[in-house]
Parts: sequence; structure tokens; C-alpha cells
Amino acid sequence: MSQDCLFCGIVAGDVPGAKVAETETTYAFMDIQPGSDGHLLVVPKRHSTDLRDIPSADLAEVAIESQRIAKHVFDAWGADGVNLLNCCGEDAWQTVFHFHMHLIPRYRDKTKDRLRLPFEPGVRGDAELIEDLASSMRSALQEG
Amino acid sequence: MSQDCLFCGIVAGDVPGAKVAETETTYAFMDIQPGSDGHLLVVPKRHSTDLRDIPSADLAEVAIESQRIAKHVFDAWGADGVNLLNCCGEDAWQTVFHFHMHLIPRYRDKTKDRLRLPFEPGVRGDAELIEDLASSMRSALQEG
Ligand SMILES: [Zn+2]
Ligand SMILES: [Zn+2]
Repeated sequence: MSQDCLFCGIVAGDVPGAKVAETETTYAFMDIQPGSDGHLLVVPKRHSTDLRDIPSADLAEVAIESQRIAKHVFDAWGADGVNLLNCCGEDAWQTVFHFHMHLIPRYRDKTKDRLRLPFEPGVRGDAELIEDLASSMRSALQEG
Repeated sequence: MSQDCLFCGIVAGDVPGAKVAETETTYAFMDIQPGSDGHLLVVPKRHSTDLRDIPSADLAEVAIESQRIAKHVFDAWGADGVNLLNCCGEDAWQTVFHFHMHLIPRYRDKTKDRLRLPFEPGVRGDAELIEDLASSMRSALQEG
């Protein structure tokens, strides 16, 4: 447990939170600033800051637990879809620095769903830039 | 392989794509409609439609491979952050029905980054509704 970490506090029960589910390694609770009705967070119990430092075993457990819950948003809440979102770093909208997966149910009924598309649909990127970036990433991955 | 599936075609090499990485079970390639420079997709080689039907082992592999690549976007591309996004269902912005994880590098330099926040920050949800939803999901999960 990390001192002064809000989500470590929720996992430990020191900070109130609307718990949804718990496994040996993960904890799921409602987001109090929901983008849609039912927006919740799945976190590893063990503190990690973000996608860069979470052990891959914890990441896999969070993903699988997110899936388990996501399958229920259709029947339990009448959702029409669901998004998973992870934000790594302040420049990617991360505001609490304990790794968390957003699980955001989606609804055709827009009174329940306040999300807006984060990117312009259908805008084709520059093909040469895309190939250059792919090439530099292939090199970076080969170097480890 | 699913007939007429664009991403099965890319994995098989029948459809051109800028490949970034490949493991035994996953395939990563550049998104041709990038939300930011370096926007790429990580998919399971084996066809799944979405988060509802992907085998949990494939999901875990996709998550771990996404993490492996995400760690490199900082050094290889000078990114300042990264988002992972999965869209499950047409009402959650899914447009290709082969499971894929968006890996979207983020930049302070907005010439490289065209993303906008998908939800209003800091808007507190209705506490009673949140508790009701948590309660109904706890019940749904207990029933399996
Ligand atoms: Zn923590
Ligand atoms: Zn496919």
C-alpha cells in the first residue's frame, strides 16, 4: 500500500467506495464522476502507478476481471455496449496514480451516457508517417 | 479465420497493413485513421468479435503485448502518455468486429495528438444511483 494513494485507501476500506467486486488480486468500485451510468474502475489491489510499472500478471488479472464484469452490463444494466479505457500519464488524462481500468457502459439512451467520441472518425492519416513510425517501433521492440 | 474480416485479412497478410509486432497469439499494426501519431491496434490472431467472446487467455495476451509496446512509445516516439481503449459494440464506437485494443500515444504537442477528452471532467454523479447500480451488479456477478 502506497501512502496517500486514494485507491489504496479504497481497497483497504479506509476511504468509502461503492464496491462492485473483489478477487484475490483485483478490486472493482464505482467511479464517482461517471461518464455514463455504471462507469466503474477495476484496479489491482497491489499498488502500481500506471501501465508502465504494473506487473504483467496484475495487468492480465485486471483485464480478465474487467471482461467478467463487462459481460454483465448488458443484462444487469441494459447497456448497449461497453468501453475499456486506461489512461497512462497526466498527458493521457490520468488523474489518480494507481493503475485503473475504466469500464464504461454505453447506452443508446443519451440521458444515461455522456460520452463523446475522442477522435474524429474516418480521417485518414499520412501513409508515409505511419510507415516511418511502424518502422521505428519495430526497431525499438527488437532492441528490447 | 473469419471470412470477410478485415483484421483476419491483415493478420494473414492478405490485406496490407503496417505491422509493428507479432507474437504467437497477437498481431500489432498501425491504425490508418490515427487519433494521434503512432496510434496502433493490438489484436488476437484468432478471430473474436469483441470483449464478450474473446477467450480470456487471448485477452490477457493482448493486454500484455499492449503494455510491452506502450512502454516503448515514450522513448521511440517521444510520447508523453498513452491510452488503451477497447470498444465493444457499435454503440461503443466499434467499427471492425474483430476484437482490437487501441494503443494511442499521447503528446503535449497537439500537432501530433488530435484526441479530445471523451467525458466532462469533474462532474460528480448521483450518489444514490451509483449505489443502486453497484448493488445490482454485485447481485448479477453472484448469480454468475
Ligand atoms: Zn495505490
Ligand atoms: Zn477476424
